[in-house]
Amino acid sequence: MAKQFVYSFEEGNKDMKNVLGGKGANLAEMTALGLPVPPGFIITAEACAEFYSLGKKYPQGMFDQVELKLKELENKMGAKLGDPNSPLLVSVRSGAAVSMPGMMDTVLNLGLNDLSVEGLAKKTGNERFAYDAYRRFINMFGDVVMGVEHKHFEAVLDSLKETKGYSFDTELAAEDWKKVCAGYKDVVKKHTGKLFPNEPKEQLKMAIDAVFNSWNSKRAIAYRRIHTITGLLGTAVNVQTMVFGNMGDTSGTGVLFTRNPSTGENKLYGEYLMNAQGEDVVAGIRTPKHIDELKKQMPIAYDELQKIYLKVEKHYKDMQDMEFTIQEGKLFILQTRRGKRTAMASVRIAVEMVKEGLITKREALLKIEAGQLDQLLHKQLDPVAKEKAKVVAKGLPASPGGAVGKAVFSAERAHELAKEGEKVILVRLETSPEDIEGMHASQGILTARGGMTSHAAVVARGMGTPCVAGCSEIKIEEPKKLFTVGGETVKELDYLTLDGSTGEVILGKVPVVDPVLSGNFGTVMEWAREAKRLGILTNADTPKDAQTAANYGAEGIGLCRTEHMFFEGVRIKAMREMILADTLEGRKKALAKIEPMQKADFKAIFKVMDNKPVVIRLLDPPLHEFLPKEEAEIEHMAMEMNVTKEKIKRTISDLHEFNPMLGFRGCRLGISFPEITEMQAKAILEAAIECRKEGFKPIAKIEIPLVGHVKEFTMQKEIVEKVAGSLGQKRGKDYWVGTMIEVPRAAMTADEIAPEADFFSFGTNDLTQMSCGFSRDDAGRFLGAYVEAGVYERDPFQSIDQGGVGMFMELCIEKGRKIKKDLDIGICGEHGGDPESVKFCHRIGLSNVSCSPYRVPIATLSAAQAAVEENKK
Amino acid sequence: MAKQFVYSFEEGNKDMKNVLGGKGANLAEMTALGLPVPPGFIITAEACAEFYSLGKKYPQGMFDQVELKLKELENKMGAKLGDPNSPLLVSVRSGAAVSMPGMMDTVLNLGLNDLSVEGLAKKTGNERFAYDAYRRFINMFGDVVMGVEHKHFEAVLDSLKETKGYSFDTELAAEDWKKVCAGYKDVVKKHTGKLFPNEPKEQLKMAIDAVFNSWNSKRAIAYRRIHTITGLLGTAVNVQTMVFGNMGDTSGTGVLFTRNPSTGENKLYGEYLMNAQGEDVVAGIRTPKHIDELKKQMPIAYDELQKIYLKVEKHYKDMQDMEFTIQEGKLFILQTRRGKRTAMASVRIAVEMVKEGLITKREALLKIEAGQLDQLLHKQLDPVAKEKAKVVAKGLPASPGGAVGKAVFSAERAHELAKEGEKVILVRLETSPEDIEGMHASQGILTARGGMTSHAAVVARGMGTPCVAGCSEIKIEEPKKLFTVGGETVKELDYLTLDGSTGEVILGKVPVVDPVLSGNFGTVMEWAREAKRLGILTNADTPKDAQTAANYGAEGIGLCRTEHMFFEGVRIKAMREMILADTLEGRKKALAKIEPMQKADFKAIFKVMDNKPVVIRLLDPPLHEFLPKEEAEIEHMAMEMNVTKEKIKRTISDLHEFNPMLGFRGCRLGISFPEITEMQAKAILEAAIECRKEGFKPIAKIEIPLVGHVKEFTMQKEIVEKVAGSLGQKRGKDYWVGTMIEVPRAAMTADEIAPEADFFSFGTNDLTQMSCGFSRDDAGRFLGAYVEAGVYERDPFQSIDQGGVGMFMELCIEKGRKIKKDLDIGICGEHGGDPESVKFCHRIGLSNVSCSPYRVPIATLSAAQAAVEENKK
Repeated sequence: MAKQFVYSFEEGNKDMKNVLGGKGANLAEMTALGLPVPPGFIITAEACAEFYSLGKKYPQGMFDQVELKLKELENKMGAKLGDPNSPLLVSVRSGAAVSMPGMMDTVLNLGLNDLSVEGLAKKTGNERFAYDAYRRFINMFGDVVMGVEHKHFEAVLDSLKETKGYSFDTELAAEDWKKVCAGYKDVVKKHTGKLFPNEPKEQLKMAIDAVFNSWNSKRAIAYRRIHTITGLLGTAVNVQTMVFGNMGDTSGTGVLFTRNPSTGENKLYGEYLMNAQGEDVVAGIRTPKHIDELKKQMPIAYDELQKIYLKVEKHYKDMQDMEFTIQEGKLFILQTRRGKRTAMASVRIAVEMVKEGLITKREALLKIEAGQLDQLLHKQLDPVAKEKAKVVAKGLPASPGGAVGKAVFSAERAHELAKEGEKVILVRLETSPEDIEGMHASQGILTARGGMTSHAAVVARGMGTPCVAGCSEIKIEEPKKLFTVGGETVKELDYLTLDGSTGEVILGKVPVVDPVLSGNFGTVMEWAREAKRLGILTNADTPKDAQTAANYGAEGIGLCRTEHMFFEGVRIKAMREMILADTLEGRKKALAKIEPMQKADFKAIFKVMDNKPVVIRLLDPPLHEFLPKEEAEIEHMAMEMNVTKEKIKRTISDLHEFNPMLGFRGCRLGISFPEITEMQAKAILEAAIECRKEGFKPIAKIEIPLVGHVKEFTMQKEIVEKVAGSLGQKRGKDYWVGTMIEVPRAAMTADEIAPEADFFSFGTNDLTQMSCGFSRDDAGRFLGAYVEAGVYERDPFQSIDQGGVGMFMELCIEKGRKIKKDLDIGICGEHGGDPESVKFCHRIGLSNVSCSPYRVPIATLSAAQAAVEENKK
Repeated sequence: MAKQFVYSFEEGNKDMKNVLGGKGANLAEMTALGLPVPPGFIITAEACAEFYSLGKKYPQGMFDQVELKLKELENKMGAKLGDPNSPLLVSVRSGAAVSMPGMMDTVLNLGLNDLSVEGLAKKTGNERFAYDAYRRFINMFGDVVMGVEHKHFEAVLDSLKETKGYSFDTELAAEDWKKVCAGYKDVVKKHTGKLFPNEPKEQLKMAIDAVFNSWNSKRAIAYRRIHTITGLLGTAVNVQTMVFGNMGDTSGTGVLFTRNPSTGENKLYGEYLMNAQGEDVVAGIRTPKHIDELKKQMPIAYDELQKIYLKVEKHYKDMQDMEFTIQEGKLFILQTRRGKRTAMASVRIAVEMVKEGLITKREALLKIEAGQLDQLLHKQLDPVAKEKAKVVAKGLPASPGGAVGKAVFSAERAHELAKEGEKVILVRLETSPEDIEGMHASQGILTARGGMTSHAAVVARGMGTPCVAGCSEIKIEEPKKLFTVGGETVKELDYLTLDGSTGEVILGKVPVVDPVLSGNFGTVMEWAREAKRLGILTNADTPKDAQTAANYGAEGIGLCRTEHMFFEGVRIKAMREMILADTLEGRKKALAKIEPMQKADFKAIFKVMDNKPVVIRLLDPPLHEFLPKEEAEIEHMAMEMNVTKEKIKRTISDLHEFNPMLGFRGCRLGISFPEITEMQAKAILEAAIECRKEGFKPIAKIEIPLVGHVKEFTMQKEIVEKVAGSLGQKRGKDYWVGTMIEVPRAAMTADEIAPEADFFSFGTNDLTQMSCGFSRDDAGRFLGAYVEAGVYERDPFQSIDQGGVGMFMELCIEKGRKIKKDLDIGICGEHGGDPESVKFCHRIGLSNVSCSPYRVPIATLSAAQAAVEENKK
């Protein structure tokens, strides 16, 4: 017996995606559910595969099966393909197991020819409708199947409209459409040298060929390469009876959501248009009506719709987005799929479905897209107002949320104006640590350079401040205090709006909406905390950040960067004094000034994170970051510190580096200047001691950055232990010493480091930079092109490059835990807040992830989802 | 029976180093050979280990054994420790299995006290000698064993000399030395609160304790940590009868080499002094005589020495460096060890020993220190003249050899003056590719910044030009055309001398000696080529470099950097045109100008390396390297290219990168601008085609740089294959495409890349930078301190960091060869010319190494040594 190459909708179900494609499997599923789906059949992906292996020939018996299924369909519909009295019309669509752009789109109205169009006219009693449908068919078929560009058809229509003096298509009468049809056929003849096929079976064959061929179109191949889609057989072909929503006043078409996709309210939501086709709803010429009105207009259809939506939602256990068409009073369902929704809706639907008993708590967690939660935590631009706003440039969506304010071009100015009560947007080529105060004072930050993990981006996310980074379209002239973009000039104090969630830059003011956290959000978070296995920590450098994170449920601090504490007024002065000092004594004197300030910081942080681990990283950035860059600032610093400008310039020049990322930073600072490590260890440990005296339970974990060789770690650990010894503190009881794993060599030699270290924490920003060999601040130039070309599926600075950097992590874990079975291993790179990365961290067995405060909910939910998914297996 | 803790010299041999220490084992070996070694015994390293495990107590029975051996010694010598008539005097020395500074030095003359000193006086008939020996003992023992600083003893002697009005020690009479002895004992009392030990056995015990304790001195522990010396038991203690070369005119002491250590001539070579001790030879107050004169002066001793040296050399099968003492006509041998020698001597000795039948060819290869061969290939500063020269600064010995010339401060000026016939030394802050012509024109290169693999260093080594890099002591003021160093100013045209082998910078002119390559060198190289398994390729960018390397025996080119070809006059103009072009057409137009030049280069190189593989790397450096930096140059370029300065500045600013090493370079260029790859592939393949037509057999291997992800490789390979297809060339037959492995991610995913690539080549410079996370140009700031602190045993840019970077290499080989068993894997980083690294490459199974032309002999010999060592196992 020949293989089955063709299935009627009745023969399939949603689990047959590999054979029937996603679209076909879903049509079959709905048919099985008893929904009024226009009947049809599916040619399998296997047929497509054989088509190719046979050198583009149909496999033996395939077309016989098509004819058989077509016959069945004709019988069922009481109509016949090409019949001059009762013509059957069908649509033909491609559909692989995975949705894939680049393949053939839709051909509608197949089966029409010069005879059957008359049949359609007779049957519908609407000649105009019939010829309109016919010309649509010729256009689509000519374009999609025969390769004639759409514009040639358009020209025929335009010329007729001009001759007749028509402005709108609606003005064309049946006769006009007839002429258009003739003109269209001439176009086909002219551009292909072939007559437009009159025989419906030939039309069908040609359409099937076109679908099969489109599987290997350039775009489809590229798409599969880019998304590393392999193992698919080919595309299936869906042949389905046409239904028409534009057959008069008892016809219509619409879209509905089983719950409100904006709010999540459990109430049918949707729009429809009477006497219209799907395209008309999309085109937006007529304004669709709210679905509630259908109840009055077509109560029977509405009731049926009600029943269907309840059934479908219950069946799929999720809010559905459905398309329907009513043809002369009869309801048809053309599609159902998971409905897109806002974060707010997502959370509400999940919680309410649990209450309704439709799903379990654990299932509910999987219904929410973790990344979306950002919407709930940040101010958003008013969506209606934004639609009218003028987007002048697009950068990277570096820190989510909407921000409005007056443009300023220096951190000082931002600070100044903010003090006066102004709302400002800080615009910089790039930011540096000395801009921190100004960044804090700003509503939003816009930079022309730098990527998703540039300084501006990282700091902004930490603060929860919206940020658009690496917006290279804007040309900033800092001395002139302005930037230009697309011919417009934005001067200081001009209003500017940023959408940090999309990367859009808008001139003028767009109103901003505050986030509202519902009780449902709390419920979901509670469920997530119950379900997850990973610890969720936060990256926080200040008591304020720590508090924010704690409010969102952070279970400790996974990364406290001490250097950010060095940038404020008095501190940076002391820091600079240390850098300029030529002697050990000089450095110690300067450090002694910083110590009490650091201690106070740590005390405050320990108190916020009482009885929770606090991982404090020792000084990390290259020292030149603490020195000014501009002449005026150098002059000011010289005066303030009573040294010559030349001395400062010489120091700056001495500290100049070709590749600062790979330069004199991290533990190299503490190894060259042990007094820095001593001071920091002392500040941390004394803070802990004092907190303990006050009744708190600080858990101090000291982290050595940029270790590549175990000896770097042990040398720094020895210093910490010596300080601790002098304070009577015991490692493993009063404090812990661990290391960042951010240098590939450290990952590779984890079995040497593990015996010495109390914990590891992956610094995946730097690990990515060094493993892949690109600087996060420079990668913007090519990383976009790389992602586009499919080298990396996602920006590896946003989502862990699992096939590369991830392998280093796995190797490190394997080597480290071979030595210490329960070694505490976390991650504190920016990836700790990326849903896919969090799930990856769960799978490879990390102990915890740490992310910026505002991403704690996302990380929590992602961790829970990973746990639920794991158990499902 | 108790364990044997003490061995007489007669009981040991040279293979017992672990028990007896190196020194003791060697003394035993010589004793066994029947050489006149002053008798003695050795306390084992095991005893030391037990001493520590017992809480610093002697193991049971140890001292009994010492006393027993002492008794035997006394009997043999007919003298007794502390005997007032015939006192035995001994030396006590430490000696572990590995030579290790930081442990206790020597105590001589042990056994002297107020009584036995008289015995010595009587026995020798020389009271002055006896008390001189006594005071030397008190001083040494007081210092080394009892911890009294030498300066306190010195003060007593100085004060006596002042009182007496003496200038020299020789003026002191016996009575004076007696007073000094008394004074010295007071010093000990004063500084230790204890009396100087009078009892010889107590002296011996204290000395043994001191040796044992010194095993765990701070310095010794640090030394072991730094050199990762583990697994040693402890130190042995050598107790040996004293002999004296200063007992009158029939006594003497000397040093001899069994062959001439400068030339290698097979003739006894050495110096001696009559009536003197070893210290006197070293002090240089008297001028030693040539060993030949001993024949006349003491013919019997000389004859004995002749016999001994022949015996010892035959026994050790190597040229020996021996110390001897003649005590009243009787010859004693105190030490023999492998003699240090020049490269020339090394080669000659090895070849002649084979001719003499003393060693085999393969053994001969192990006698030569590969790294030393550099001496034979480069001009050297005249050693005598250099001694008097004024070394004003020391930088890194970046490219070996001596160079003299007039200082110039720009590459243009160097070029200009060289054309006029001047010899110049180019002095720069750092060099960049645009300095190439000027570098070529210079005798030597001196830079203030950059490490051993900085641009200047790499290029200079390639050219064989001496270079001192990273000499931060010199302060260059380029605009003023001068530099200052230690108060001196060097202006343009002042003479300057560089020693690139040591990193020394000398003011003025030092004569330079040309290298001479002897026939012996050729013989050794021939043997080495027979013995080695690794292929030896060269890094060469020009036909000239390729020829140099071929002359030294290079078997092909492992790295031809195409970018260096872009820097000359017309080419850089075309290159800049390409960079400035805004359109694809513009770029293609500029590239079309470069193509024929590149093709001509490749043809010339293929011809030099006929029938040998030539690996050509596609464009690698960031584009900004091709643009000028200085205002004047920018202006000149603007004029020349007829564009505005602003346009150039904008391009420079656009191309600015934070970390260019991790920036827009390598295959990222070819991925963003495929037309560059196309042009280069075309030039290479057409060159090969044309060469083939002319009867040559080019083996063209195209190398894609900076690949981190297999897709980067395949995308570039596709371009090459397309070009090749259009030229009718077949991969695997007419050309090959492979990749650098220099990004850690590439090493980690070698199993994904291997199926696609025809060969791998480790770029260990970049692999080290990225694996360890330090930029080679910036690491100077801390890498010295790191090596000193023992983090890395050697500069990882000079010698492969085997425990880190080496593991990446091994992982890569394992993953790559798992897929392709015979995958051709080489190395083309600077490490390819480092002996230890070459041996490592042999051990991990690389196919070949590639190094700069002048290091080909070193790599060849190292590879041969690795092969010989492997077979020995």
